Amino acid sequence: MTAGWDDAKLRLMAMERIRHVTIIGVGLLGGSLGLAIKRRCGKVHVAGVGRRRSSLKQALDIGAIDSAHLDARQAVAESDLVVLATPVGGFEGYLRIIAPLLKRGAIVTDVGSTKSQVVKIAGRILGAAGPFVASHPLAGSDKKGPQHARADLFQGATCILTPTGQTPVLMLRRIERFWKTLGMRTVNMPPHLHDRVMARVSHLPHAAAVILMLLPGEGDLALSATGLRDMTRLASGDAEVWRDVLLTNRREMLSAIDRFDELLMRLRDLIDVGDGPGIHRLLQRAKNRREGTIARLDQ
Amino acid sequence: MTAGWDDAKLRLMAMERIRHVTIIGVGLLGGSLGLAIKRRCGKVHVAGVGRRRSSLKQALDIGAIDSAHLDARQAVAESDLVVLATPVGGFEGYLRIIAPLLKRGAIVTDVGSTKSQVVKIAGRILGAAGPFVASHPLAGSDKKGPQHARADLFQGATCILTPTGQTPVLMLRRIERFWKTLGMRTVNMPPHLHDRVMARVSHLPHAAAVILMLLPGEGDLALSATGLRDMTRLASGDAEVWRDVLLTNRREMLSAIDRFDELLMRLRDLIDVGDGPGIHRLLQRAKNRREGTIARLDQ
Repeated sequence: MTAGWDDAKLRLMAMERIRHVTIIGVGLLGGSLGLAIKRRCGKVHVAGVGRRRSSLKQALDIGAIDSAHLDARQAVAESDLVVLATPVGGFEGYLRIIAPLLKRGAIVTDVGSTKSQVVKIAGRILGAAGPFVASHPLAGSDKKGPQHARADLFQGATCILTPTGQTPVLMLRRIERFWKTLGMRTVNMPPHLHDRVMARVSHLPHAAAVILMLLPGEGDLALSATGLRDMTRLASGDAEVWRDVLLTNRREMLSAIDRFDELLMRLRDLIDVGDGPGIHRLLQRAKNRREGTIARLDQ
Repeated sequence: MTAGWDDAKLRLMAMERIRHVTIIGVGLLGGSLGLAIKRRCGKVHVAGVGRRRSSLKQALDIGAIDSAHLDARQAVAESDLVVLATPVGGFEGYLRIIAPLLKRGAIVTDVGSTKSQVVKIAGRILGAAGPFVASHPLAGSDKKGPQHARADLFQGATCILTPTGQTPVLMLRRIERFWKTLGMRTVNMPPHLHDRVMARVSHLPHAAAVILMLLPGEGDLALSATGLRDMTRLASGDAEVWRDVLLTNRREMLSAIDRFDELLMRLRDLIDVGDGPGIHRLLQRAKNRREGTIARLDQ
């Protein structure tokens, strides 16, 4: 807690109403966010910023946004909250555009899948103790565009926040409260730790799905079953979004790839020499680990 | 077609009734096979052979088998059809036991996921033109044991048959007919080609699922989402079954692993040098390929 603020006062200020939100990027995530805000946050004006008229029109049509803007400058000056929801590679440009226009007390957050680089860029543009709280809601879809937006996309899922030591605690509390209002559980961790964990549980699996999809011959796919379909679903994700994820989590991705390769070569050796007990141990260890953890969530 | 046989006669003989089947191995696949036969093949006695009394009792209880045997010798002498449904590594031992007891006209098949080695072993024991037709029904589950057996497991799926040049065509037709009666589509291909395709669309993906499950730290898994859950589902498969698959498809697995590694290292390089357009092309190629093929089967 910041010295001089007592808890009650912090709570009170954290609950201050958000009346105007700008969502920059009205794709599946931005559109779903608009729908969720309209449903759960009471009377709020949601301004949508996008590059394509068609997406903005769809977002308007489904009621995800109240006003549509091709230029971010038109919307942000009135906003209590600005959410960056474009691919991560677009954040820097938008931050530079909106920085001089933000009103006093406004907060900027995002929905990007990588955090170290985003936090660094935001710190450089808005100031290290500036009004930015980085968020990563663990929700998404392999679908693209506002036409697939869902008001309940965030419901019941986890949102990771990655404050730094200089993030104003009041702003952190307000952003936590915002995601909780949308039905999310929030977890805080440092940006570099977020990126390491995500490389292992999300970004590397995504890369593996892409490679598994490219490996078979065209004709082989006719003989694939549900196993390959499940394993390659992530490869249907948006190429621009995922390019930016891989580019902005470079160090942790390289380290996760090296670790994957090491395990793959260990399995290769076991197969090569025909080490049945060794292969069995490896398979059993993975099975036990899965059944002690994420298998409990299987349908 | 074999010289001297006309089509009509072949069809007639292929339709000869199967009245007694022995299923060796009454796990999920063997149990499901028993249930499917009881439902779709009319009046047939299904004898189940297993190593554990508890599995045999469960298979009897759910009506998957009519008689239970710890010793394969008790059952096969009366059988028109014997199906090997243990892990692939158990086939050789059972083939040696049953070979001297098979009645004239009886056929042996299997449900194993690898074929070259199985066909070689069966040829050695039953003769190159002996009564063996290798089958691989593309159906299964990450569940284990007859308690998860389902009469409709094979319904609508594909069964790959891998006859050799010496497989008697009449036997091939009877086995094709058998799987079709259970609701399957059949495809014929040479054993080595089957093993190559399966390494790419099934066995390597299985290995990747195992490695993805072992790679994260224990705590990281709490922050995983549906992507990792889908991608690691195969890692819940039975360790003994999959040990045998990897061991008996050694050559094609090594080649598929090397190909995977090559693609992974290509992606690693692109990330390392920050080649955005190169990463985008790779991701887009995988996405286009998936959407032109197996994505059409997504729910």
